[in-house]
Amino acid sequence: MHIYRTHTCAGLSSANVGETVRLSGWVHRVRDHGGILFIDLRDHYGVTQVLCDPDSAAFAEVEKVRSEWCIRIDGEVKARDAELVNSKIPTGEIEVFVRDIEVLGAAKELPLIVFGDQEYPEETRLRYRYLDLRREVMQKNMTLRSDVVASMRKRMWDQEFREYQTPIITASSPEGARDFLVPSRLHPGKFYALPQAPQQFKQLIMVSGFDKYFQIAPCFRDEDPRADRSPTDFYQLDLEMSFVEQQDVFDTIQPVIQGVFEEFGGGRKVDTEWPQISYKDAALWYGTDKPDLRNPIKMDVVSEHFAGSGFAIFAKLLEQDGTEIRAIPAPGGGSRKFCDRMNAFAQKEGLPGMGYIFWRDANGEMEAAGPLAKNIGPERTEAIRQQLDLGVGDAAFFLGGKPASFERVAGKARDVIGDELELTDKDRFAFCWIVDFPMYEADEESGDIDFSHNPFSMPQGGLEALEGNPLDVLGFQYDLACNGYELISGAIRNHKLDVMIKAFELAGYDEAEVRKRFGGMVNAFQYGAPPHGGCAVGIDRCVMLLADEDNIREVIMFPMNQRAEDLMMGAPSEPTNEQLRELRLRVLPPES
Amino acid sequence: MHIYRTHTCAGLSSANVGETVRLSGWVHRVRDHGGILFIDLRDHYGVTQVLCDPDSAAFAEVEKVRSEWCIRIDGEVKARDAELVNSKIPTGEIEVFVRDIEVLGAAKELPLIVFGDQEYPEETRLRYRYLDLRREVMQKNMTLRSDVVASMRKRMWDQEFREYQTPIITASSPEGARDFLVPSRLHPGKFYALPQAPQQFKQLIMVSGFDKYFQIAPCFRDEDPRADRSPTDFYQLDLEMSFVEQQDVFDTIQPVIQGVFEEFGGGRKVDTEWPQISYKDAALWYGTDKPDLRNPIKMDVVSEHFAGSGFAIFAKLLEQDGTEIRAIPAPGGGSRKFCDRMNAFAQKEGLPGMGYIFWRDANGEMEAAGPLAKNIGPERTEAIRQQLDLGVGDAAFFLGGKPASFERVAGKARDVIGDELELTDKDRFAFCWIVDFPMYEADEESGDIDFSHNPFSMPQGGLEALEGNPLDVLGFQYDLACNGYELISGAIRNHKLDVMIKAFELAGYDEAEVRKRFGGMVNAFQYGAPPHGGCAVGIDRCVMLLADEDNIREVIMFPMNQRAEDLMMGAPSEPTNEQLRELRLRVLPPES
Repeated sequence: MHIYRTHTCAGLSSANVGETVRLSGWVHRVRDHGGILFIDLRDHYGVTQVLCDPDSAAFAEVEKVRSEWCIRIDGEVKARDAELVNSKIPTGEIEVFVRDIEVLGAAKELPLIVFGDQEYPEETRLRYRYLDLRREVMQKNMTLRSDVVASMRKRMWDQEFREYQTPIITASSPEGARDFLVPSRLHPGKFYALPQAPQQFKQLIMVSGFDKYFQIAPCFRDEDPRADRSPTDFYQLDLEMSFVEQQDVFDTIQPVIQGVFEEFGGGRKVDTEWPQISYKDAALWYGTDKPDLRNPIKMDVVSEHFAGSGFAIFAKLLEQDGTEIRAIPAPGGGSRKFCDRMNAFAQKEGLPGMGYIFWRDANGEMEAAGPLAKNIGPERTEAIRQQLDLGVGDAAFFLGGKPASFERVAGKARDVIGDELELTDKDRFAFCWIVDFPMYEADEESGDIDFSHNPFSMPQGGLEALEGNPLDVLGFQYDLACNGYELISGAIRNHKLDVMIKAFELAGYDEAEVRKRFGGMVNAFQYGAPPHGGCAVGIDRCVMLLADEDNIREVIMFPMNQRAEDLMMGAPSEPTNEQLRELRLRVLPPES
Repeated sequence: MHIYRTHTCAGLSSANVGETVRLSGWVHRVRDHGGILFIDLRDHYGVTQVLCDPDSAAFAEVEKVRSEWCIRIDGEVKARDAELVNSKIPTGEIEVFVRDIEVLGAAKELPLIVFGDQEYPEETRLRYRYLDLRREVMQKNMTLRSDVVASMRKRMWDQEFREYQTPIITASSPEGARDFLVPSRLHPGKFYALPQAPQQFKQLIMVSGFDKYFQIAPCFRDEDPRADRSPTDFYQLDLEMSFVEQQDVFDTIQPVIQGVFEEFGGGRKVDTEWPQISYKDAALWYGTDKPDLRNPIKMDVVSEHFAGSGFAIFAKLLEQDGTEIRAIPAPGGGSRKFCDRMNAFAQKEGLPGMGYIFWRDANGEMEAAGPLAKNIGPERTEAIRQQLDLGVGDAAFFLGGKPASFERVAGKARDVIGDELELTDKDRFAFCWIVDFPMYEADEESGDIDFSHNPFSMPQGGLEALEGNPLDVLGFQYDLACNGYELISGAIRNHKLDVMIKAFELAGYDEAEVRKRFGGMVNAFQYGAPPHGGCAVGIDRCVMLLADEDNIREVIMFPMNQRAEDLMMGAPSEPTNEQLRELRLRVLPPES
């Protein structure tokens, strides 16, 4: 007999009745029923009820065990009485009568109860993560994560991608965040960087002729933490392909992601149509470049109905350049109470308010209500209604100004309206590609042109396009949004050195600077670079969505806390003087 | 038609004759045969011969291309004349007549020729790694590596292991090397460490109840580089299991490694019997704890035959405590020339020399030759011959003293003898487990006791064993050796806090120190820790053996050079002042 177990705690059924078995696991619960001790013995696989009566030689030992002690028991499998069968668990037809027990690991008083649903502060959970992880939901989340990643790998292999590992202690590979630095002992005063993404290396793999690369890649960004972002390291399904256009990348990754969501979505609907929406349209329709398409609301421009109208605020606004009035239709939101609540929401978000019209039944006639309708009069009101395809019981909200000033709030309002009116189908995964990102943006104050996203993307129209107004240049760059989260980001890369130099020049970097900062890639592009492109999938976010969690730390085994500390392991910590001496570093005192 | 290709460069055969196709790839070779240009067009998948005659509209463009330009061509597939068919490549029956060409990426003069077998200095190869990687052998090595890792994963999944990712920016997890440190920006003056292995985290995963963990894990050790070790990061197949004994770990990992070697060994013999050899026996028999069992030579103790013999050097030596005489049998080495060569080898390795006896035929009689035989006389010589089972044409070499003083050289001599006498079967993978490692060793000078290997291993005999002489304590600790390399290292862990505290105490660490250095794990062990154990497989070394390379950099995509620099990417490099300021660090000048 194996010294620890003949079966797991999910392995016994009525087929084993009469057998002498050995189990190991944790004491999930102990109950005393009329002098007989009942223990739910738990391991990773399940729970088995074991019991011990005072006649057993093991009774005195069994009496000592407490919750979360790790024990090994020997005993005989018996069938439960019919009325005691628990059909909810695989081992529910049997129980094991304990004959022998060995305490493998005792537990002192628990700072966190594993059994049940009691909530604990995150700091407690992270400090005692090994107890927190024993909880059923965490066991599920972690195995889900593992299974999702395994499924991604298999799906990539099936498409003849190979996984290649890229360096982790390396040169800076900027993706817009801060680098984590690693001081070099062999070259004191010099530092390595941890890659923000394997961006440059995967492009070099393409230049090396490997054609199809992927990697479940750790990425490192020294960013301030938030709920959907890990403060230190996180994982991407990173892929890159040679000799492809944007649509080829879409056709490659959609079956992977769709397949994973179908496999692990727990029956929630997974959209198979993934519309491609331009960055510009997404901003207009949804107020964000990561729209939640489960919400059917689509905003629209209604400037024409307000230009020169009796609603002076909007009419005047529209006399300024670059202003617009946009409407958020709210089917089913046609009550003053709801409209006032949304108006208050906009004020809380820092806007002066949100004008509205709602349509109600007045003695069998449709009536447009709200101050705005009065100001602009029935004809304009009716034109708006028709444009937005609304009717009795519906409402529309209006925001005006330069789009940049209200777009974010409009997007949030759309979310709230969708939620409150229950328009948003929660049991669904809705995906869309956001395409045609602008290559450049102008700094609001200085007017300086800089890259708005990835500087390595190929500008649409190539070198020629870069001769015109930089703000008109679009990139072959794309994101995938799912339920309001950005799941994927990618691009067709700029593999042409002359185009790259020009593209950087527009953003204010001269050729020498580009060669200095991205020397490895720039040099490589001089030796027969193939056209290539790819994307990276945020794994933690995928798992978070699939697990129906809204905090990324629920799907990471040992996450940092929000101050980027690991309280369990005591990181970060003070270095020894010898370590600092070897690295030739001195820590400066805080500035006073 | 796709804008880059209808087929890969391995995709066309006689079935495609007559089709108009589009190919993209690199110009492997260009030849001019009587005015017709022949290009071997290469991509990741293969090579296709394309040709262009002066009648083609594309001729002028085709004439411009040079080696390693990346091009796209359109053309018509034609069958080659029978005498021109190349049966060595899948596309050898056809060629493509170029009608159109597009240069996707030109190349300037190459620092490294991709075609052919020319050797280049490693610095050149690493600086232009993207060209080096285009070479056939490197494409093979990298795909082999990828396939090996994929196969390992599948084999682990098949055994119901799940892969869980552990933190990379974390606390120190010492494995006997230096940590790489990462300064914290949010906590200036404090540092994270990159894990030397996920050792503590995988043990915490067991305490968390996950039962079977594995990970293809990056590990980070700030070590001085050598041929079979990467200077920065390297990969392990890391695994851990709960409720297991040593043999369970062996039974789990053997099928994985054996399976991988059978799958990728290219027909070389893979031993299925993996003997378990104690650390002590390995030192005695093979002079190393990573013996190459392809070599049948097994050393033996022959002290008794020299004690009190006429060979005064050995006889005197044996009067000292702790000394031994060991013999290296050398079947087929029975010539004075060979024996003298081996004696010279020992001198080059810093020993005074290596005594020998060899047996030759003298007129039909067996004769023992060499000065040693004369000194000890025929009876002792014959007893040695019988013990070592040698005969005419064979030799034996002798080393004496304290084993520690000659064991290493003895092991090397065994390798050289095996090689020179062609006893070592090169087309074979021979594995053995080395078990029963001593827990402790005494410092030669101070006599201080310290851990000889992993401090987290369970001592054989538990707490009781720790009451005796520490140097007698063996650990449940094991290595796997293959062909002279250490491929795996592992242990059954010490999950009992009292045993752990005692084990550290023997090595000079008091409880407070242990709690400070390993607080995370020590705390966890107070809350119901299960017995557990595991191991880690050196992936780079596995691939190196399978690829038949003897330098680890041949199987790593972008390795550092021997000075831990990446010349291609320019790492490590000087940080900016702003980065240092954010981290509150100052770089000190070199000590003068």
